[in-house]
Amino acid sequence: MKARIVVTPKKTVLDPQGKVVANAIQQLGMQCVSEARVGKYIELDISGENLELTRQKLDGICKDLLSNPVIEDYRLELEK
Amino acid sequence: MKARIVVTPKKTVLDPQGKVVANAIQQLGMQCVSEARVGKYIELDISGENLELTRQKLDGICKDLLSNPVIEDYRLELEK
Repeated sequence: MKARIVVTPKKTVLDPQGKVVANAIQQLGMQCVSEARVGKYIELDISGENLELTRQKLDGICKDLLSNPVIEDYRLELEK
Repeated sequence: MKARIVVTPKKTVLDPQGKVVANAIQQLGMQCVSEARVGKYIELDISGENLELTRQKLDGICKDLLSNPVIEDYRLELEK
């Protein structure tokens, strides 16, 4: 099984890294890029077949370990 | 338009950060997680309607700015 987790700063939180990336892209000639947000991407290889149980456990791990729920959102995708 | 870019270390490249994440997840009771890889996620807000031209320009920016093609792969998704 594969899990893909994307952790991004919440919409209401300032993202200085994203600002820098947006500026750099504009400098490279793409003025059409108005905003950038930079987050983390984590890909996991998982053994086992119980999709629902795995999702529950991973949800906990996303909250406790992989993201900071105060300032970050996460998105979890599981694929057999 | 929205662009989502995922930058991951190539399969053949050691990913120490991923190793640490995999270990930590196993310590938290999910021994079924055998491997983790950690990458970057970048989300862009783009004005304009020309999907094909935007994709070409962004491809260049992914190669030149957002990833290091020697050790990293990128995946680019565009969505109207």
